[in-house]
Amino acid sequence: MLEDLKAEVLEANLELVRRGLVVYTFGNASAVSREHGLCVIKPSGVPYEKMTPADMVVTDLHGKIVEGSLKPSSDLATHVALYRAFPNIGGVVHTHSRHATAWAQAQREIPCFGTTHADYFHGSIPITEPLMRHEIESEYEANTGVAIILRMKGIDPLGCPACLVNGHAPFCWGKSVTAAAHTAVIVEEIAAMAWITVTINPAARPIPAPLRDKHHFRKHGPNAYYGQ
Amino acid sequence: MLEDLKAEVLEANLELVRRGLVVYTFGNASAVSREHGLCVIKPSGVPYEKMTPADMVVTDLHGKIVEGSLKPSSDLATHVALYRAFPNIGGVVHTHSRHATAWAQAQREIPCFGTTHADYFHGSIPITEPLMRHEIESEYEANTGVAIILRMKGIDPLGCPACLVNGHAPFCWGKSVTAAAHTAVIVEEIAAMAWITVTINPAARPIPAPLRDKHHFRKHGPNAYYGQ
Amino acid sequence: MLEDLKAEVLEANLELVRRGLVVYTFGNASAVSREHGLCVIKPSGVPYEKMTPADMVVTDLHGKIVEGSLKPSSDLATHVALYRAFPNIGGVVHTHSRHATAWAQAQREIPCFGTTHADYFHGSIPITEPLMRHEIESEYEANTGVAIILRMKGIDPLGCPACLVNGHAPFCWGKSVTAAAHTAVIVEEIAAMAWITVTINPAARPIPAPLRDKHHFRKHGPNAYYGQ
Amino acid sequence: MLEDLKAEVLEANLELVRRGLVVYTFGNASAVSREHGLCVIKPSGVPYEKMTPADMVVTDLHGKIVEGSLKPSSDLATHVALYRAFPNIGGVVHTHSRHATAWAQAQREIPCFGTTHADYFHGSIPITEPLMRHEIESEYEANTGVAIILRMKGIDPLGCPACLVNGHAPFCWGKSVTAAAHTAVIVEEIAAMAWITVTINPAARPIPAPLRDKHHFRKHGPNAYYGQ
Repeated sequence: MLEDLKAEVLEANLELVRRGLVVYTFGNASAVSREHGLCVIKPSGVPYEKMTPADMVVTDLHGKIVEGSLKPSSDLATHVALYRAFPNIGGVVHTHSRHATAWAQAQREIPCFGTTHADYFHGSIPITEPLMRHEIESEYEANTGVAIILRMKGIDPLGCPACLVNGHAPFCWGKSVTAAAHTAVIVEEIAAMAWITVTINPAARPIPAPLRDKHHFRKHGPNAYYGQ
Repeated sequence: MLEDLKAEVLEANLELVRRGLVVYTFGNASAVSREHGLCVIKPSGVPYEKMTPADMVVTDLHGKIVEGSLKPSSDLATHVALYRAFPNIGGVVHTHSRHATAWAQAQREIPCFGTTHADYFHGSIPITEPLMRHEIESEYEANTGVAIILRMKGIDPLGCPACLVNGHAPFCWGKSVTAAAHTAVIVEEIAAMAWITVTINPAARPIPAPLRDKHHFRKHGPNAYYGQ
Repeated sequence: MLEDLKAEVLEANLELVRRGLVVYTFGNASAVSREHGLCVIKPSGVPYEKMTPADMVVTDLHGKIVEGSLKPSSDLATHVALYRAFPNIGGVVHTHSRHATAWAQAQREIPCFGTTHADYFHGSIPITEPLMRHEIESEYEANTGVAIILRMKGIDPLGCPACLVNGHAPFCWGKSVTAAAHTAVIVEEIAAMAWITVTINPAARPIPAPLRDKHHFRKHGPNAYYGQ
Repeated sequence: MLEDLKAEVLEANLELVRRGLVVYTFGNASAVSREHGLCVIKPSGVPYEKMTPADMVVTDLHGKIVEGSLKPSSDLATHVALYRAFPNIGGVVHTHSRHATAWAQAQREIPCFGTTHADYFHGSIPITEPLMRHEIESEYEANTGVAIILRMKGIDPLGCPACLVNGHAPFCWGKSVTAAAHTAVIVEEIAAMAWITVTINPAARPIPAPLRDKHHFRKHGPNAYYGQ
């Protein structure tokens, strides 16, 4: 069932390992089959080096397990909340990558300090509001999804393919799980650059809107001219 | 004698090398056999690439050598002090890993800035009081153990599996030496993230108690639901 | 056509990958054949691991494609502007390497803090003025070249083989594309050292002119005595 | 001639590469044969991957070439000045390693912030006074040696086996060139830790003298008890 998608989800998880974004069993990636209304996600707490496509867990878009003998990632409810809210995304990746997590811990959005950032994000990488006690104590992972969705209100998810969860770490997404993993790598690089930027110049300012727009729309939308 | 434990101690030491936590002969790991009342520890100042299980030194819980032709790690007295004081731990790891050591040198505990930290520690990673001159000049390594034990008073060692020694570096522990080495890797990652956090936002605050509790008890205790 | 130059351009691009200066398809390198009045440049957005010399694109010095089935790097117009303005350079390299990009984002030139810097640059690594809206919205890449050329007015391009583009990232050059890639690696190292320098001592000052001159002219010009 | 020493000098140079302390042709290592009154040093500007023991250059202790077809390292005069001044050292290593160089550029000695530092240095890693214009313009490399020797006045070179050259980078030494290369690796690690320490806590203080002495003399002198 969904063998190709399982292979792609595993491969996206392994890309996080190869790029140094995860330590031990940190992180999780999933994909959605819009045709079947199903989500394919990494199992919880299994070492990456032992994972096979058959270990991936298949659930419906409310997190009910449809296939798989292992428990799905504990963040499953966040993934499916994003799939329900953002109909044009195909994959979600969550990491605790070092620099992006530090911005989430600093409770700061990542300003668009340069064209590297603008190439991928049409503005800041946003950060959610902190969750309230009752949102944490009941249905925590689903409420994490709600906080992201609230923060993304009025923002195109493909023009801003990540959000920091306050005090936690980034969630990233894309048209596919492969794209979401690519974004997770870029978010970590942007977060590192932004950190160095503010330590060189604490008064650093975002780039002007025309430069941001130029770079973003060189790579995205109908007038894009980057790549083949 | 204790061949399996020797192999596990060696493997934990090598894990520190693979994860970039030690330079040259820095660091040491040990395990305890509660059944035999014996400690198995790395020899002092031997290059990791030449170490074999047979090089491990076996001592009693007061540091008296029972087996082994090499001198044990110079920090042995700290290890056995921890085994005597914390009856539910099975392994101890000491490193001078870069970022965790910097917090010890800055004489600061590591605040619980995010969920990555809360997943492993139910609160700050504490730091000992500085040792007094007489504690340094006589039985220094044993007194390092005493300082850790004093600082851990009232704290569950498995809910807080590491302590920074003031002006020195971290000691980590766990149910086994494998778990202690895993913790040492995590402590280094948490220390790096916390450093970046405070340089992005010097006014950064620990996460609220409900979020800390949620993440900690997702992974620990009777209601844990992370992993298989 | 220009087979040797294509191979050298590919090799320079791969050197950027090996040295950790580029993520995914970031970065681009080109060379000029002064004899033929032609530029050889990397294609746009092609993964490095799949690139062959035959994928390189040949253009004239106004960016008109002369040979090649792939689209050239989107930064082509910047490269050829530099070749027209600086007659003694043979190669151009553009990266978004982490630390150099952070200085560009911080909108700061990199001061000559030490002899490592002076070995390659006879003074600061300069930064362009920000582009105006109309310079961004029309002929952006060519205007990026113009901004660099304006900033380099009165400076010998071989005594100062790189310039930061404001809010963007570095452009580097040299007698050959091999030399330009070497410079890109050095610029990243210098940028990292300068960042650490200012975070240790925010009041750090450039080295005195005699020390700068001594190191620069040990390696450059008629009295150089470094190397074989 | 001195074949074993040439092999050891080459190996020490390669250790700098393996440990990430040098970029391209940066850095140089040498050894002295006290018996022969000769110095064996790396050639200038030769890529490490192509170097063989036969490329090492043999000079007398005033820098006169005795054997070798390549030009010696341009820093030769500094090396031999140190050999003449410090009769108990056997090797010298100079690098531009990232963090140690940043301290030299920040014009700051590295305080003894922790036991990792005290294990190797009995106090701060000192920094020279800036050279005067006439010291730079004539016999620069020899005067760099003089500045180090002046700064080391009253300090045991083996209790303090490195000195930062102001605005430049570290020189390290030891009983052998192998020991000097080991020290260069440690100096870089100590420099990185000290940088992180001061960015976490700008008011960080050196450890008290008893703790410094305890760790230093655990590893050095007649009462050392570290290692086998």
